[in-house]
Formats: sequence, structure tokens, C-alpha cells
Amino acid sequence: MSTPSLLILPGDGIGPEVMAEVVRIIDWFGEKRGLKFDVTTALVGGAAYDKHGVPLSDETMAKAQEVDAVLLGAVGGPKYDVLDFSVKPERGLLRLRKEMDLFANLRPAQCFDALADFSSLKKDVVAGLDIMIVRELTSGIYFGEPRGIITEGNERVGINTQRYTESEIRRAAIAAFELAMKRNKKLCSMEKANVMESGILWRDVVTEVSADYPEVELSHMYADNGAMQLVRAPKQFDVIVTDNLFGDVLSDCAAMLTGSLGMLPSASLGAPMANGRPKAMYEPVHGSAPDIAGQGKANPIACILSFAMALRYSFDEGAEATRLEQSIENVLADGVRTADLLADEGVTPVSTSGMGDAILAAL
Amino acid sequence: MSTPSLLILPGDGIGPEVMAEVVRIIDWFGEKRGLKFDVTTALVGGAAYDKHGVPLSDETMAKAQEVDAVLLGAVGGPKYDVLDFSVKPERGLLRLRKEMDLFANLRPAQCFDALADFSSLKKDVVAGLDIMIVRELTSGIYFGEPRGIITEGNERVGINTQRYTESEIRRAAIAAFELAMKRNKKLCSMEKANVMESGILWRDVVTEVSADYPEVELSHMYADNGAMQLVRAPKQFDVIVTDNLFGDVLSDCAAMLTGSLGMLPSASLGAPMANGRPKAMYEPVHGSAPDIAGQGKANPIACILSFAMALRYSFDEGAEATRLEQSIENVLADGVRTADLLADEGVTPVSTSGMGDAILAAL
Ligand SMILES: CC(C)[C@H](C(=O)O)[C@@H](O)C(=O)O
Ligand SMILES: CC(C)[C@H](C(=O)O)[C@@H](O)C(=O)O
Repeated sequence: MSTPSLLILPGDGIGPEVMAEVVRIIDWFGEKRGLKFDVTTALVGGAAYDKHGVPLSDETMAKAQEVDAVLLGAVGGPKYDVLDFSVKPERGLLRLRKEMDLFANLRPAQCFDALADFSSLKKDVVAGLDIMIVRELTSGIYFGEPRGIITEGNERVGINTQRYTESEIRRAAIAAFELAMKRNKKLCSMEKANVMESGILWRDVVTEVSADYPEVELSHMYADNGAMQLVRAPKQFDVIVTDNLFGDVLSDCAAMLTGSLGMLPSASLGAPMANGRPKAMYEPVHGSAPDIAGQGKANPIACILSFAMALRYSFDEGAEATRLEQSIENVLADGVRTADLLADEGVTPVSTSGMGDAILAAL
Repeated sequence: MSTPSLLILPGDGIGPEVMAEVVRIIDWFGEKRGLKFDVTTALVGGAAYDKHGVPLSDETMAKAQEVDAVLLGAVGGPKYDVLDFSVKPERGLLRLRKEMDLFANLRPAQCFDALADFSSLKKDVVAGLDIMIVRELTSGIYFGEPRGIITEGNERVGINTQRYTESEIRRAAIAAFELAMKRNKKLCSMEKANVMESGILWRDVVTEVSADYPEVELSHMYADNGAMQLVRAPKQFDVIVTDNLFGDVLSDCAAMLTGSLGMLPSASLGAPMANGRPKAMYEPVHGSAPDIAGQGKANPIACILSFAMALRYSFDEGAEATRLEQSIENVLADGVRTADLLADEGVTPVSTSGMGDAILAAL
């Protein structure tokens, strides 16, 4: 097989600094483990807007379609708040998701032993937490038409449309059941079937798909109750599958339970390409954190763990992914902390590149 | 003024048992405080379906329009899961909200001192928590058209529509600013203006309304970040205003932070009636809890506190409301607990009516 290709899109805010550490890790794998990647770097979000007047150029979009995997930092910032909706940084990200058809967004919410104290939740509620949220990423109210702000009589009306086809629901459900099979064989599907017809269809289709996975224990939960249960007793869950909008809110809620947002990666996967690899984009769950951008304070771990997910899901290098994840756990166990992880007094935070140094040393 | 009128709709599951305790409290106010109410009782939800084949009869709907306030228990249960969408128990509740035009749903998330240990969050994160969530309740994706499950090609498509007019947003915003003025003058508005046009309009209109409330410090937050911040540091909030769907999920998330779901009331308010009182319905935040229904285990406090909200918001009896709330705090401070509140070993739970007895004694 030819050298696998990566497109790196650092984006805005802390994106470039955390991605710089990922690049060092990628280089390490090339030098020490013979895992070479053909790396291209390009702009996305506000950075692309500043250069090209759009949050994602057609060239970059084409490149993303071509490579084996995309690594994205983060997009957005207050500077771009005034921009028209159609060119906001987020549109670049949404275009990538939509045009690459990355329907399955995998968001692990995992509580790291060394950091359990750092959660706002009681330690026994979150220690050992390991949930995987599968969020549908290419449809629902994010993309449904009609949408917009129209004028009716003498007032404005804001409209968005939630729209799910059976096959859109089915492929997300299959992705979730497959993951559940590799984990603890428990899947909880969340919607509002009590008030939304799209939720009824969601529940129907997920139930249909479950016939092919008799070993997986399927349950259904209303999304509002889901939010409650995540807060009350998150360890009751193994895999959760839900739509684009509920997934946005619930996965952020779940992420914050772990107390270590700067630690959480995500993978967005689509259909297999000609070479058998899925279309894929990997990005940290955290945002662009404009308040600390450029100060070397950001925690690069979420972005590095996103690369670990790429090793596992795109390049079938599960053992190397585990090696990287294990190095990170060791570094944390040694007490190395970026500023966001400083619960204890008396520990001096390392910088973004200091954390990169520590992980490279542990590797 | 003539005797104020109440319509009591106990509903399903634990609804009737918790409402029975409210009726005893209402009687106490009539006998001891000269606050007489003209009380009618009727069916809603599954109970109404069983009797009338619909989750709310036209007679009951008409009665609800006529009275000074409605008190509702809870609706729904597994028995009704098989029913067609149009006659599900929830439709009864939604019809009341819509036809009474109860646009402002007030959901306090308050952590009771005596119960702070019972939260899944660390005590210092939630002790003293006192947030008010104002959820728009008559529009958005709950009611927008078109909606339904259609067939396109050879597959089904589930459709719902989020639709907000400027005036719908404005009246909810005004309700929230008014509350903020009576509280700590901080309002946070939550939407997804980065991906939804209806969110852009929401943000615009809330910002416009803020011009009339220069004393209130207004902030905007994306709803996914809102879920995170509620988990991370809920005490940063005073009043939150958000749409129907985000309000559903975020208010349940906030409710669970307090650790005492069986304690949380809500008020749904509409426009003033001819007598100056707002159209109003009061209900506990908890659901019908079919698993414990009929066993005398349910905590009646949320429903009793909903009546306290009625005293305050419908009948201008703030002092009497405080008297009732204070009695409940005293009972809790004395260690009286229903089964849902049993964090400590060695405490024997009281029954639903036992809690009613204790509150009456404290009054
Ligand atoms: C940046 C934004 C468009 C995005 C979303 O809403 O999906 C983000 O919140 C996320 O969850 O990846
Ligand atoms: C019962 C259901 C229709 C309702 C809702 O979704 O609004 C409930 O969850 C609530 O929050 O009052």
C-alpha cells in the first residue's frame, strides 16, 4: 500500500498550537515505528476566511475527499461573530462533515483515573466512566430544508427543519450496534418520540436494526431523561446513539462529566473508500478557546488522542493507538498537568509543548 | 373578588398520590388561613384516554381555560406506549400548554441545603444553587408545521419543524428579563445561533429586548456549551432563557444537578386574563414514575411546591407561598425523607402521605 495520507487543518484559536504537538507525535511514529504519513496542511474556519474569504476553500475540500484521514484542530472565535452566517468558521467544519458524508460521530466520554478528582461530580459517580456516544452528523436540523429567516406580515420568522430518512437513521444505528458489539453490548438510543415524529421514526428504525444484533441489549430513552441520567448515574451507559442536535448537547454534557474536556477526542466516520478505509475526520471535542489562544497554555491531549483514534479507525493500527494512549496515561499518572488540569495546589503547569515533550518522552 | 378557582388534573402514575397531598394542603390553607379555592378535578393523559378515548376531553380543556389556575400531576406510562401519537398521554399536556398559550415555563433548579449531599455533584459545586430556567413552551419544534412521517421513494422520512416568530421569542424574553429583575439581574440566553437560523433570530430578539432592561447583564451561550457549563459550574447562572426543545433537555439536566428531582416544581404562564391573573398551569418537573406508582412511595414535595408557585404567581400570596416553602425546608431539616431522598443509612422513609402529614404539622 502507498504511504497513507493525512490532511491537517489546524483552524483557529488554540487549534494551531495543539496541532503542532500532534505533528511532533506523527513524526515520532514515522521515525521510530516506521509509520510514515504523507502530510498536507491547509486552512479551515476563520483562518481560511481571512485568507480566502470562505471558511473552507474548494481546493481544501477536494483534498479532504482525497486523503485517508483529516485531522482538524478547532474553528471559531469572537472576531468572526459579525460575519454572515454563510461564511462563519463553523460552516467550514459543517461542509467537511456534509460533503465527506461523515455520518457517524464517535465521542468517547472517558474519565481518566489520574483526573477523576477533577470532575465536578463525585468521584464514585465518574471514576472508571467509559461511554461512547454515537452522534448522527450529516442530517437532522443541522442541514434540513427549508431553513432561514423569512418575513411574514410585519415580523421575522426563524425556521429550521429536522428531517431524517430511514437510511440515514439506519446507517448511524448500524455504526452504534457495531461499536456496542466490540464493547459491553449495551446500546441506548435517545430521542423525543413522545413529541417528535422524527423521533418516532428514529426509534422504529433503531429497533428494526436491533434484529441483526440479538446480543446487544437495546434500550430507548427520551433525550431529556437522557440528560438527567447522564448527570445522575452515567456509568449505566455503554454506547449511546442519538441524532445530530441531541448528540451535540448530550455529548458535551457527557464530556463535561469526566472533568477533563481538554482530554476528549472524537472521530467522524463515513462510508468505506476504494481502499477500504472509511472516510474520516478526527478532532478534539473542545473548541477553539480564543481566551487562551497563542499563550501556550492549551492542553494538546484531546488532539493527540484524536490522532490515536485515527491510528485505530483509519489505519488499523490499534496496537500503536494503545501505545500512544498508554503513554498519555503514564504522563498523567506522573502528575504532569497543563493549566486546565490543575486541581491540586503546588503543581506547576506545563505548557502545550511541555506536555508534548512529556508524551514524546513517555513514548 | 369571587373565590379563586383551581382545576386539578392528577393524571397518571404517581400523579394521583402526590396530588392527594396537595389537596390536603389546599384544604389547610382554606381552613387555617382563610384562603378558599373552588376546586374541580378532572382527567388528563392516560387516565383521560381510558375513560374518553382522548388524553384531554374538550370539556376539561374548556374548564382549564376558565379557571384561575390548573394544577397538574404527571402524565404517561408504558401501558400507553402502543397508542397512536395523536392520542398519547403527552398530547393532553401539550394541548393544555398550546391552547392556554402558556408561553413561559418557569423551572427553578434549587438545591435544598438539607439535601446537598444527595446530588451526584460535589457539594461545593451545588450547595446554595438557585437557578431559574425560563423555557419557551408553546412553539418551536414541539408545534411547528410541517411535521409527520412521510414516504419518499421507497423509504420513510421523519419531519419536524422548528419555527419561531419574533413575537414568540420576545414575550418569552420579556418574561425572563422580568424575572431577572426580581432576582440577581443576570440572564443567559441559550441557542445554537452558530448552526440554526432560528437561533440567530432568537439571539437578535433577546438582544433587542435587553435594551429595555439596562440593569440586567445579558449573555449568550450555545446550548451545547450551556449543558457543559451547567455541569461544570452551575452557580454561574441566575436566569436562563431558551427555546422549547433546548429548554426541555437543559432544564432536566439542571434539575438533576440538585439531586432532588422529587423536589422541583414548575409554573407555566401565559397572558393576563380579564381578572388580571395570568393563565397558568403548575406541575412538578418529575414524571409519572410508573415503576413506583400506587405504592405510597412517591415524594409529594415537587407537587406541593408547584402549589406554592401558584400561590405566588397566580394569587399574589407570596407570603403564604413562603410559609409553605419554609415548612417544607423545616421538615427536611428535621430529617424526614421519602424513599427517593434516602442517601443516609439508618433513616426510615416516610410514605407519600407521611410526608404530607409532616408538612401539615410543620404548617
Ligand atoms: C462548532 C459547531 C458547529 C459544532 C456543532 O454544533 O456540531 C460543535 O459544537 C461540535 O459539537 O462539534
Ligand atoms: C411529557 C413531555 C411531553 C414533556 C415535554 O417534553 O415537554 C416533559 O418532558 C416536560 O419537560 O414537561
